Amino acid sequence: MKLWQKKCKLNKEIEKFTVGNDYLLDKKLVKYDCVASIAHAKMLNKIGVLKKKECSKLIKTLNQIIKLDSKGKFLIKQEDEDCHTAIENYLIKKLGKTGKKIHTARSRNDQILTALRLYCKEESKSTFGLIDKLINQLILFKGKYGKTEMPGYTHMRKAMPSSVGLWTESFIESMNDNKKLLVNATKLLDQSPLGTGAGYGLPLKANRKLTAKLLGFKKIQKNPIYVQNSRGKFEASLLNALNQIMFDLNKMSSDLILFSMEELGYFELAKEICTGSSIMPHKKNPDVLEVLRAKYHQCLSYEFQLKTVISNLPSGYNRDLQLTKEPLIKTIEITKESLKIIKLLLGKVKVNEQNCQKKITKEMYSVKELHELVKKGDSFRDAYSKISEEGFYVAGKNK
Amino acid sequence: MKLWQKKCKLNKEIEKFTVGNDYLLDKKLVKYDCVASIAHAKMLNKIGVLKKKECSKLIKTLNQIIKLDSKGKFLIKQEDEDCHTAIENYLIKKLGKTGKKIHTARSRNDQILTALRLYCKEESKSTFGLIDKLINQLILFKGKYGKTEMPGYTHMRKAMPSSVGLWTESFIESMNDNKKLLVNATKLLDQSPLGTGAGYGLPLKANRKLTAKLLGFKKIQKNPIYVQNSRGKFEASLLNALNQIMFDLNKMSSDLILFSMEELGYFELAKEICTGSSIMPHKKNPDVLEVLRAKYHQCLSYEFQLKTVISNLPSGYNRDLQLTKEPLIKTIEITKESLKIIKLLLGKVKVNEQNCQKKITKEMYSVKELHELVKKGDSFRDAYSKISEEGFYVAGKNK
Amino acid sequence: MKLWQKKCKLNKEIEKFTVGNDYLLDKKLVKYDCVASIAHAKMLNKIGVLKKKECSKLIKTLNQIIKLDSKGKFLIKQEDEDCHTAIENYLIKKLGKTGKKIHTARSRNDQILTALRLYCKEESKSTFGLIDKLINQLILFKGKYGKTEMPGYTHMRKAMPSSVGLWTESFIESMNDNKKLLVNATKLLDQSPLGTGAGYGLPLKANRKLTAKLLGFKKIQKNPIYVQNSRGKFEASLLNALNQIMFDLNKMSSDLILFSMEELGYFELAKEICTGSSIMPHKKNPDVLEVLRAKYHQCLSYEFQLKTVISNLPSGYNRDLQLTKEPLIKTIEITKESLKIIKLLLGKVKVNEQNCQKKITKEMYSVKELHELVKKGDSFRDAYSKISEEGFYVAGKNK
Amino acid sequence: MKLWQKKCKLNKEIEKFTVGNDYLLDKKLVKYDCVASIAHAKMLNKIGVLKKKECSKLIKTLNQIIKLDSKGKFLIKQEDEDCHTAIENYLIKKLGKTGKKIHTARSRNDQILTALRLYCKEESKSTFGLIDKLINQLILFKGKYGKTEMPGYTHMRKAMPSSVGLWTESFIESMNDNKKLLVNATKLLDQSPLGTGAGYGLPLKANRKLTAKLLGFKKIQKNPIYVQNSRGKFEASLLNALNQIMFDLNKMSSDLILFSMEELGYFELAKEICTGSSIMPHKKNPDVLEVLRAKYHQCLSYEFQLKTVISNLPSGYNRDLQLTKEPLIKTIEITKESLKIIKLLLGKVKVNEQNCQKKITKEMYSVKELHELVKKGDSFRDAYSKISEEGFYVAGKNK
Repeated sequence: MKLWQKKCKLNKEIEKFTVGNDYLLDKKLVKYDCVASIAHAKMLNKIGVLKKKECSKLIKTLNQIIKLDSKGKFLIKQEDEDCHTAIENYLIKKLGKTGKKIHTARSRNDQILTALRLYCKEESKSTFGLIDKLINQLILFKGKYGKTEMPGYTHMRKAMPSSVGLWTESFIESMNDNKKLLVNATKLLDQSPLGTGAGYGLPLKANRKLTAKLLGFKKIQKNPIYVQNSRGKFEASLLNALNQIMFDLNKMSSDLILFSMEELGYFELAKEICTGSSIMPHKKNPDVLEVLRAKYHQCLSYEFQLKTVISNLPSGYNRDLQLTKEPLIKTIEITKESLKIIKLLLGKVKVNEQNCQKKITKEMYSVKELHELVKKGDSFRDAYSKISEEGFYVAGKNK
Repeated sequence: MKLWQKKCKLNKEIEKFTVGNDYLLDKKLVKYDCVASIAHAKMLNKIGVLKKKECSKLIKTLNQIIKLDSKGKFLIKQEDEDCHTAIENYLIKKLGKTGKKIHTARSRNDQILTALRLYCKEESKSTFGLIDKLINQLILFKGKYGKTEMPGYTHMRKAMPSSVGLWTESFIESMNDNKKLLVNATKLLDQSPLGTGAGYGLPLKANRKLTAKLLGFKKIQKNPIYVQNSRGKFEASLLNALNQIMFDLNKMSSDLILFSMEELGYFELAKEICTGSSIMPHKKNPDVLEVLRAKYHQCLSYEFQLKTVISNLPSGYNRDLQLTKEPLIKTIEITKESLKIIKLLLGKVKVNEQNCQKKITKEMYSVKELHELVKKGDSFRDAYSKISEEGFYVAGKNK
Repeated sequence: MKLWQKKCKLNKEIEKFTVGNDYLLDKKLVKYDCVASIAHAKMLNKIGVLKKKECSKLIKTLNQIIKLDSKGKFLIKQEDEDCHTAIENYLIKKLGKTGKKIHTARSRNDQILTALRLYCKEESKSTFGLIDKLINQLILFKGKYGKTEMPGYTHMRKAMPSSVGLWTESFIESMNDNKKLLVNATKLLDQSPLGTGAGYGLPLKANRKLTAKLLGFKKIQKNPIYVQNSRGKFEASLLNALNQIMFDLNKMSSDLILFSMEELGYFELAKEICTGSSIMPHKKNPDVLEVLRAKYHQCLSYEFQLKTVISNLPSGYNRDLQLTKEPLIKTIEITKESLKIIKLLLGKVKVNEQNCQKKITKEMYSVKELHELVKKGDSFRDAYSKISEEGFYVAGKNK
Repeated sequence: MKLWQKKCKLNKEIEKFTVGNDYLLDKKLVKYDCVASIAHAKMLNKIGVLKKKECSKLIKTLNQIIKLDSKGKFLIKQEDEDCHTAIENYLIKKLGKTGKKIHTARSRNDQILTALRLYCKEESKSTFGLIDKLINQLILFKGKYGKTEMPGYTHMRKAMPSSVGLWTESFIESMNDNKKLLVNATKLLDQSPLGTGAGYGLPLKANRKLTAKLLGFKKIQKNPIYVQNSRGKFEASLLNALNQIMFDLNKMSSDLILFSMEELGYFELAKEICTGSSIMPHKKNPDVLEVLRAKYHQCLSYEFQLKTVISNLPSGYNRDLQLTKEPLIKTIEITKESLKIIKLLLGKVKVNEQNCQKKITKEMYSVKELHELVKKGDSFRDAYSKISEEGFYVAGKNK
């Protein structure tokens, strides 16, 4: 039974195709859709559409659904299409006519946006928390190994002396910036779409400020067409922020893979995080880091899916927008999982201090040597020339 | 139990992360991995590694797995990592020491490539068949409505008279080209990787030509490093070909949505393929076409995931390549599903001949009128000028 | 003459290839690099590297370059590689030994980042101004046509009555959000990278706070490795913000193309913004809107390029980062140009009030009718059923 | 003067915006557009539209343009919009009324497609030639260093012994496959679009087979709508093929950068192909390889642009298609340039045979050792277990 059920039934294969995996993805949204419906019910009561008793019954039953869902016991069937239908059907089954009133003054178009934004806000908060945990792990790592000097690279060639501390801090500072990015991206989503109907307002005067307040939204998003047009647009900025996190993990993984090569030997990965080969008994492979590195590309492709699927469409809801749900949910899930994994990993990385020190070779002090000549009166560019032999520097030549 | 199991166990969360959804995706590959193992066993027997009896036992048990799998009863557990491990474990459980011999002279690196290519070849063939079915449907459609004239558009503005037949034929010709694209993309995949081990050959002399022949590969892919480096590369061309199909469906959907707008009214969609609105009782929406249109972007993002995940990596297997599996399998699945749906859909599209005819307005014959002046002796460019009023054409002015 | 010139000369073709179009793109950066060098010179004077007189000379000559550049007379040759080299060469040519001192305590790695960020900050500000101009134009448009009712669409099917004002406001509200996005994206860039050298600090104690203050940066970006790793990362968020603007223009163009189709006829485009056909004298095409629509994809692909080119690289500067410059500069240029064009365009769009009104057909009031039944006591879902005939609504049936 | 010039002039800024950089890109197409016009003129003569003398004059003047263009002296002004207009204007200026006849029975829509395909075919051929040159260089390299053993890597960890020859052959085999890809992708483009007009045929009976034959096309592309819809689609497959070449160069660059790290030291880059640092006199950086690596992403983003810009559009020409030209031309240019550079580079790479040999450490023979146990009667999996110590192999333990 669909919300828009007609006497003429939808072709079964067409139904399956249009629903896609929405009924599975929507598991993430059941809670938020119920929370939004509770606020909606309260508002309907306030404006006289629902009696107090009806409102209480709806709230009670919606809370039941939340509880069922938290135990994984609230099912969304493929015929239900989505969580909205499954929930309305449940309400009607339990409450009869009262259940049939919940959809007054709203459309699925504003309803799904409300649930998605509540979901995004909560997920953003928990991602923030995971970044903090990673930062703490980085601080621990720095505390343990920070003072160890190691070669610093440019162009994958030894450049100047660096240190494990400097390397670690670079990710701490970046992760702190990521938190700001995340907060800013979430601000956009912190606008209530509820009460704008299908995109062209409603014939009933819904109290939009009330529902916005009940749901903890900073403000209402006023224009109903804009509400629909912002589907995908707002999520795009969230995905951009998440992909900055993923980019940092891509780089951290690239570093850890390179620095733990036997030939460099700065870092060592504990056996329990390495995998083996099906044919080469000696192998100790950093698979987890490689998968982590690759996940950036996966998330990036989700971002581009979202950003292209919404293109070249006229204003107002178009069903294409349904395909923004998977990239959004998947990117959030992957980012959170990746943050947990890198934190766990870092606890199992050791620094080989001997190798780090040994590999800082003399030529890496060329900048220091050059600036000593500067202090003695040479101009920078003359000192640079002087210090080079046939154009390429030989360590200590000018001492 | 993994193929590379060590005494020191892999951290559980790391394991879960690196396995990802591989154990689910690999369901598609069980059959092909068994078929490849049967060929491998025959070859091992030929070169003296397996006794005849051992070989028969292995083949028999592998066929059992194929049967189990066809009934959905062969399970791959997350701890198994992938189908290769699940299958080897099953063989060892059933056959003891004989099972332990199957992995001689191969690595998972060449094994997975073999299974994937057999899978791709078969899927390519069945996609080819689905294109043919769509072409047949298009021919039927043309037979029914082909002669009806309708406006032809450029820049979404009426241009010249066209016909339903011309429109339909455009997709038939394109689908015929898509078949060639598909065949060519599959040629690349028709090279046997089996027998190249982990990417640097094997200490045993495997008879690569034999396994290639048994598996129906056109040729062997010689260089073992190239075998590994072609993971993703070969699939990329297949995805490009599939996305040309999806592009055509994207355009056909765009046309059908536009042409079935009430304001144009050339095509009509049967009720049973339209969906309704949760709030607007009068709506009859072309959701299925919108989802179809959006799927092009989904598949395109998979292609770009595949093409970027393999970038900036040195030669030889890197675990990043695991993430080429999902985009490959998903794109194949979506393309096949979409071809089925559009075929079904077309059977439920009617042409409104009256509207088609009515909307062919006089100015659309401007090119004809112009060329009539040309026939009477005007140069093309003079005729063009003559026929315009203040630069913009008025129909019939020069008659 | 390059900054790093060796006796052994770089192969000419290699040089050409690595320089690419950098020497052309860098025209945009000359001013900013000079401004940054002036601040750097002041700082070098403060810490005793430059004498007061040397400092004044450098500042004077750098200001000369800025002046030359503003007249398009400062040339960067291909052999110069980039603006940094061209400027240093000019200083040395004019000032001899004093010119040779300017590069003390800095590397091109932190220098280019400084110039780019100053450039981004200024461009962001001017983009902000262009958004404001577009908003003003939208307000004018709304003032003129806002009250006209027109059909509102979902799924490219008539949904509910809307108005030109509602449509216009949707873009005003969105553009206001875009301003916030832009401001937030620019915050990230408002950190001074100057004084971090090649990515591993400097043997001289540069006064980073001083240069940051002189250049108007909000804060310094502390960690030198992070400074290098943020190349591309910071720009990514700016491109995301710009692409939100481009997305809105993509939608506005899609709307204008659709709404100005003869078959709908809500909007009319002035002749002077329409182009013709080489063969069809009657055509009046909305090319400019189509190009505008397409530009979103161009900018999106630049964002994609920037976000992938920086992937899978270890920490520290890698020359791959050079290829972030073009996507950055091009996206900024295109966005600004597009904002100007759409503003200009809107001034030449008329609303056909008669067509707008005429096309609001009765069934579009189904939601209103439904809610009237609700007011009379029906539950929402019962009213929904009642109002439908065989599942599909017939206007006025229940009145 | 435009082909479609009206009395009402196009707004200057709109004109500039819609033309974009087309008038610059079209330099590449002048020759092909003239060649196509010559064939068109011959056909017009055949069907009686042009007299023999008119035809000869047109051919003569078109050949003049080809000559001028080969010397860089045929100009396309911004007001001309594109090469087609510039050429027709030239013909009219020189030949008066005869020039005004050239556009009979064609539209710019089929004209541009013809020029682009002739261009693609020729560029594809010259790319093929460049691949062959690279293969020859690789063969030389193999001849010189092929027998040197070096470590083979998986997961960026030493795996098994490999050789410089094996590495080199992997790219030779891949480049040979790339040639096939290129040939196949070009087949699609080898269909003549000329004579289909604006997308809906022509009121004159053009002899399409004649022009196709004169221009060397394998066949004609029949359906005029399909001709327009294949703009972008056909190029997409060419870009996919070119990007397979770029992918190989990306990998070769990644290998060369890694293998020439001092810490591995297998390969050495000649000084003349390395660049230096502005601040670190000792640096010898592989910039050219890094830029080459990055170019893959640039080309990939062009492919992405082309594949998305054509999406969600209805059948028939839409001006969005103009934006397929730049990605096409740029990708071709970059691929050709990159092939030349890598060939040049390879001639300046030395193999350090001592380092190669030295780094093949004992554990890399684990697979060999394992298979020796297999030969002695152990099953593969038992041998694997036996050879491991605490799960991780210690070289020679079981000897």
